[in-house]
Amino acid sequence: MDECRYDVVGIGNAIVDIIARCDDAKLDRLGLPKGHMRLIGEDDVVSLYKEMGPAVEVSGGSAANTMTGIASLGGKSAFVGKVSDDEFGRIFRHDIRAADVSFEVPLAENDAPTARSLIFVTPDGERTMNTFLGVSPLLNNGEIDPTLIAQSKITYLEGYLFDRDEAKQAFHQAARIAREAGRKVSLSLSDSFCVDRHRQEFLNLIRERVDLLFANEEEICALYGTKDFATACDRVAEDADLAAVTRGAAGCVVITRGEKIEVSPDPVEEVVDTTGAGDLYAAGFLQGLARDLDLRTCARLAGVAAAEIISHIGARPENRLIRVAREKGLPV
Amino acid sequence: MDECRYDVVGIGNAIVDIIARCDDAKLDRLGLPKGHMRLIGEDDVVSLYKEMGPAVEVSGGSAANTMTGIASLGGKSAFVGKVSDDEFGRIFRHDIRAADVSFEVPLAENDAPTARSLIFVTPDGERTMNTFLGVSPLLNNGEIDPTLIAQSKITYLEGYLFDRDEAKQAFHQAARIAREAGRKVSLSLSDSFCVDRHRQEFLNLIRERVDLLFANEEEICALYGTKDFATACDRVAEDADLAAVTRGAAGCVVITRGEKIEVSPDPVEEVVDTTGAGDLYAAGFLQGLARDLDLRTCARLAGVAAAEIISHIGARPENRLIRVAREKGLPV
Repeated sequence: MDECRYDVVGIGNAIVDIIARCDDAKLDRLGLPKGHMRLIGEDDVVSLYKEMGPAVEVSGGSAANTMTGIASLGGKSAFVGKVSDDEFGRIFRHDIRAADVSFEVPLAENDAPTARSLIFVTPDGERTMNTFLGVSPLLNNGEIDPTLIAQSKITYLEGYLFDRDEAKQAFHQAARIAREAGRKVSLSLSDSFCVDRHRQEFLNLIRERVDLLFANEEEICALYGTKDFATACDRVAEDADLAAVTRGAAGCVVITRGEKIEVSPDPVEEVVDTTGAGDLYAAGFLQGLARDLDLRTCARLAGVAAAEIISHIGARPENRLIRVAREKGLPV
Repeated sequence: MDECRYDVVGIGNAIVDIIARCDDAKLDRLGLPKGHMRLIGEDDVVSLYKEMGPAVEVSGGSAANTMTGIASLGGKSAFVGKVSDDEFGRIFRHDIRAADVSFEVPLAENDAPTARSLIFVTPDGERTMNTFLGVSPLLNNGEIDPTLIAQSKITYLEGYLFDRDEAKQAFHQAARIAREAGRKVSLSLSDSFCVDRHRQEFLNLIRERVDLLFANEEEICALYGTKDFATACDRVAEDADLAAVTRGAAGCVVITRGEKIEVSPDPVEEVVDTTGAGDLYAAGFLQGLARDLDLRTCARLAGVAAAEIISHIGARPENRLIRVAREKGLPV
């Protein structure tokens, strides 16, 4: 790729996470779908928050997490997402800028509040997310800057954007601009329920405009309406040039049209909170690609970034990932 | 003590902590006094926040932390402090109630914002706090409920309250009510700079109205204007019936008019963030006293609670302290 201002620009929901631990019985009692993201309204936030234990607030948002991971790996990243001029909006803007990610979307005024996700983390480290999107999807009023997209090697889009029409339009707009500028487009499937909601649209997009697809096992199976992982892998090899599919503790499979590369996960002492595991996997992989590393090394870098994030609460790196990766002998 | 509704009621500043890591060079460059708390204005919050790295938000406040520690140890605690009806105020109220601490002070409206502390944590785990008090000190408009004080075995007051006249009046009011109701009064010296600012008033209070004094080595030395720890211990033995003085990695000394009991600290694998170490020490000690345990056991319980809090970011327990203490064979 020729010289670009950014390695990756990410477009996604701009969210502050409110994270508390809970046991599985509480998830059951509240009827929350374990391991998934569901959308909730503003009133639900109030009632569900009352049910949460003591929490911490930490900036999140899938693509935003990925962009902070890229910066932490020494890459140049930018984020496009929308927050309001309220306490959570100022927190989100502070945290992403402090992580050395370019973030130039102005704070919205007199609009809906900044998005927040009430995240319940069970003792096994699994996270269950309840997201109020607020102002976040309102991305079709000039927020997508064509120059920024054209100046980024890769445009990374989170599938969650498909859940709101305004955001979906912005998503398509960004993908089109990137392609027309000769840049790469990458998509994360985000959540299997999200895939269920938008299966055909995702398939069309992947076939027409996506260079690199990220998914986990459940999401790729949902995409092809199969319970058989091998079948889903065969199918995605026909539709996408490159797909990186994560399998939790079983590592990941990198799939090209001619090859399947299996990579073991990076060892983790204790899985504390899986929030952001997929986001940071994507960060490592994308940063490897931006550095023209081979696919196996990209996957290893992805695994190292994911291992860091699940070893603590919150989906933003607590350690400088470039240092962690170098200690493991990776060429970053 | 006869039957009370609460083991301890704590009165203090109601603060949300904004915690970020930094190196020592940054503290120097910003001129921040390492290991101390200093008060800052609302404008300083904006400029200093810009200097911070990516942060997490977690409820704090010295006495508030102590009350959550007591609840986590299975005790009954209540907290009196003031927050506004803003995002941070709602976070503070949620977190303390979710920790099973009674908190009935209404959210203030149309007033100053909720207090926040910008906390810089260096690689050695030391925390340096920059606190904007906002609405927090406005505690003299009926917030001190005489019935609540009279129904609590111990009233626990943080020295930080002395930094604002309105809060200091509330402090004296609460101490007087507790004494008149035949309850115990406990004071934490909070910070050596705070002691420097109010030395004589603290001494008068300790001699007249305090049953149990908490301090660290630096604070007790500041109180008596000496650099010699043994001298400070001798002096406090004359002024207070009971004092518990912490010495960081050197453990603590419990001082009565006739005895000095030295207790080793609880082992900690890694000191991540010392924010709240003194607060949780006080929690363990107070809960031990409320359960009529001997002083050495009170100090050990204090050490266990402090060890838990410094092993992670933030000053609220992440693990159920009663379980941790029982695993160590302590009778709670």
